Amino acid sequence: MTADVPKVVIVGAGFGGLTAAQALARAPVDVTLIDRHNFHYFQPLLYQVATAALSPADIAWPIRSIVRRQKNITVLMAEVEGVDPQARLVHAGATAVPYDFLVLATGATHSYFGHPEWAAVAPGLKQIEDATRIRRKVLLAFEEAELIDDPDEQRRLLTFVVVGGGPTGVEMAGAIAEVAHYALPSEFRRIDPHAARVILIEAGPRLLPTFPEDLSAYAAQALEKMGVEVMTSARVTDCDGRGVDLEASRIEAGTLVWAAGVIASPAGEWLQVEQDRAGRVKVGPDLAVPGRPEVFVIGDTAAAVDAEGKTVPGIAPAAKQMGAYVAKVIAARASGRPAPGPFRYRHQGDLATIGRKAAVVKLGSVHLTGFIGWLFWGVAHVYFLIGLRNRAVVAFTWLWNYLTYQRGARLIVDGPGGQEEARAEKAKPQAPAVEAGRTRSRDQAPVEGTDWR
Amino acid sequence: MTADVPKVVIVGAGFGGLTAAQALARAPVDVTLIDRHNFHYFQPLLYQVATAALSPADIAWPIRSIVRRQKNITVLMAEVEGVDPQARLVHAGATAVPYDFLVLATGATHSYFGHPEWAAVAPGLKQIEDATRIRRKVLLAFEEAELIDDPDEQRRLLTFVVVGGGPTGVEMAGAIAEVAHYALPSEFRRIDPHAARVILIEAGPRLLPTFPEDLSAYAAQALEKMGVEVMTSARVTDCDGRGVDLEASRIEAGTLVWAAGVIASPAGEWLQVEQDRAGRVKVGPDLAVPGRPEVFVIGDTAAAVDAEGKTVPGIAPAAKQMGAYVAKVIAARASGRPAPGPFRYRHQGDLATIGRKAAVVKLGSVHLTGFIGWLFWGVAHVYFLIGLRNRAVVAFTWLWNYLTYQRGARLIVDGPGGQEEARAEKAKPQAPAVEAGRTRSRDQAPVEGTDWR
Repeated sequence: MTADVPKVVIVGAGFGGLTAAQALARAPVDVTLIDRHNFHYFQPLLYQVATAALSPADIAWPIRSIVRRQKNITVLMAEVEGVDPQARLVHAGATAVPYDFLVLATGATHSYFGHPEWAAVAPGLKQIEDATRIRRKVLLAFEEAELIDDPDEQRRLLTFVVVGGGPTGVEMAGAIAEVAHYALPSEFRRIDPHAARVILIEAGPRLLPTFPEDLSAYAAQALEKMGVEVMTSARVTDCDGRGVDLEASRIEAGTLVWAAGVIASPAGEWLQVEQDRAGRVKVGPDLAVPGRPEVFVIGDTAAAVDAEGKTVPGIAPAAKQMGAYVAKVIAARASGRPAPGPFRYRHQGDLATIGRKAAVVKLGSVHLTGFIGWLFWGVAHVYFLIGLRNRAVVAFTWLWNYLTYQRGARLIVDGPGGQEEARAEKAKPQAPAVEAGRTRSRDQAPVEGTDWR
Repeated sequence: MTADVPKVVIVGAGFGGLTAAQALARAPVDVTLIDRHNFHYFQPLLYQVATAALSPADIAWPIRSIVRRQKNITVLMAEVEGVDPQARLVHAGATAVPYDFLVLATGATHSYFGHPEWAAVAPGLKQIEDATRIRRKVLLAFEEAELIDDPDEQRRLLTFVVVGGGPTGVEMAGAIAEVAHYALPSEFRRIDPHAARVILIEAGPRLLPTFPEDLSAYAAQALEKMGVEVMTSARVTDCDGRGVDLEASRIEAGTLVWAAGVIASPAGEWLQVEQDRAGRVKVGPDLAVPGRPEVFVIGDTAAAVDAEGKTVPGIAPAAKQMGAYVAKVIAARASGRPAPGPFRYRHQGDLATIGRKAAVVKLGSVHLTGFIGWLFWGVAHVYFLIGLRNRAVVAFTWLWNYLTYQRGARLIVDGPGGQEEARAEKAKPQAPAVEAGRTRSRDQAPVEGTDWR
């Protein structure tokens, strides 16, 4: 580090933070990029890890490796515990990192709408660890069913419930159905994986509420063709280790997956500034915190409205655009140039895959479905994967899976009743203040007040 | 299952058990293959997972998937807790599986020579979980060193000690040196990974004691050229969380890896039969337990002497040969044909890789070293990998790593101070009766009584 250039600290190396760090490559600043993991990962493909199609390393890259040629970046793997905006320090363990500009890009986590205890039994899908945990649960359900004789318990174990009909829920339900109905049947002798039930529960009247109605209808049809039971206008009232309660009925299930809501990480609490009900920090038109022009909040952690009055959604392209924008603002201010105008969000489209040969794509007025949609989705995702090696391996693995119906990454790595389950029992408490809070992410309707259980 | 053919139960789907199961494809028997994991893995490449070159899924395959076309096999994922040889039952949880023939192929685990407490601080490398745990420790050491300022503690964190100079120890030391000296240097700003020390400690007078002396000397030279400090005739007297004690000195180290000894799994205790000092079951010339002609013990769990009086070593090819042999015996007896003669072991050669462009190979009287040895080693290992997809991915990944010096699978998946560490503290107790016990594996000299610390 040199002492005479401004210090930029970026917390979080997701899409927003990493884009900001990379966009500062030529700015006269020293960048410190802090993340509690040593890797950046491609969240849109996490469900493929959860359903054993890809390995974690196929969709994740060491942060250091990504930015190794950028000499003005220091990467620190550390858990940030707080920010001191007066002293301009970021606290991470025993280390205090000083900043002149701060970018908080710490993302979001699952929201259980005031029921943190559900986290232990209905894992969400945000982190690599979530994905391997869900993979383990799904695969173990088949193994345990094969081992026992009680038909009721076998039926329960082979019932998979996905809560939330946004893109993640649709993708998970489709992928679990594929595993059960295509990948596994020839491999079991005592149970028939074809008999597995996959149920997708959505509180609103239709799947994919952020998509146009024709694509929602197509998605529901395609899922049903794959054997997924789609329940709309169905509200979860309780989850436990053996199933899920709806308003009027109960479903006994071995595996619950939560894809219904997100809540921002605690950046707002660190800063002691105004947050919306989902814990997101309300930022100004330049994505800075009001009254703190040197502190920016981007990505899923920010409640941002762009120059045209559009609410910026919690999706990867939005986070990247915000990251690139704050880098421009910081570079301008560090160089004494005038800062750019307010942030403008460009919506590029919506994508969700349903399974083998089916996806829905909305690009402006163009709606794609079926095989064409799936091809477009595949090409787009391989294109956005970082690193030549991963692109090649993912493309090859997909082609292989497509041709053979196999799934290569089917490892259960903790044994039955292992440590991972024990960890899951320690549900991370959710802030009670956000009981009704929710953010608009790709998995949530833009309508404020919709109950997404 | 059909009721009228003999029931064969195979416990363990490693090289021995899986080979036996597959070799029974056309025999008039029902096979039940039980393993506590859902996957078979290629142990010889485990060190590549531990050093972030490959992903677990690259070297592991679902057992069910491997045998899915073999209609006479039922696969159960369960932890076997005991055997009732009188009632001919295998107990696994609530399940009791009856057998007419039993094959125990449960492998071996690490031996800490009467110091089970060392397991918590010096993990060995037998399971996939061991490999991801070591990977995490090695990568975290660099991350933590980058985060702190104390030069003594940085030096300690960047010191890696591998105990045991057999093939696994040689491979681990070489691979850690490669990570430190080639893959990482451009990525850190505050520490210099070049300064990392990798120390290989061997109690005997030379590395690779089962190899000819010229290959041992070559290996030591090649490792030293890569920056590994090789200490022979050095005995470990204590291990703790901060380093290792030798007879006359102490090495402060952040990471210890144990590659010094193995001990058989408890099949002998289940059967209540004679074991050698390393817990291996003494078997007859047909690999059956004396007095129990329907119970066979194979692989690292067996203390076998072949028809020519050769002690069968604890290596993968030997386990496979034993598996194929017992399948023949069982098939013959199930069909009422005469059983084959006693087991004969064919030694195919010895292989150990040292790092980029260097390996030692002994094939009969042919000794290969250097790049030619490395090429031979690579081709042989890709060839033995199961499954076309994995072969292609591994070959591609190796080529990529070779050309770019990168390691793609560098994921730390539990965060600093995570659950995995906590798990490590609960050292699995070793049976005290085996205090001085050791088996001859590829990581151990054939000389009985050599102290391998």
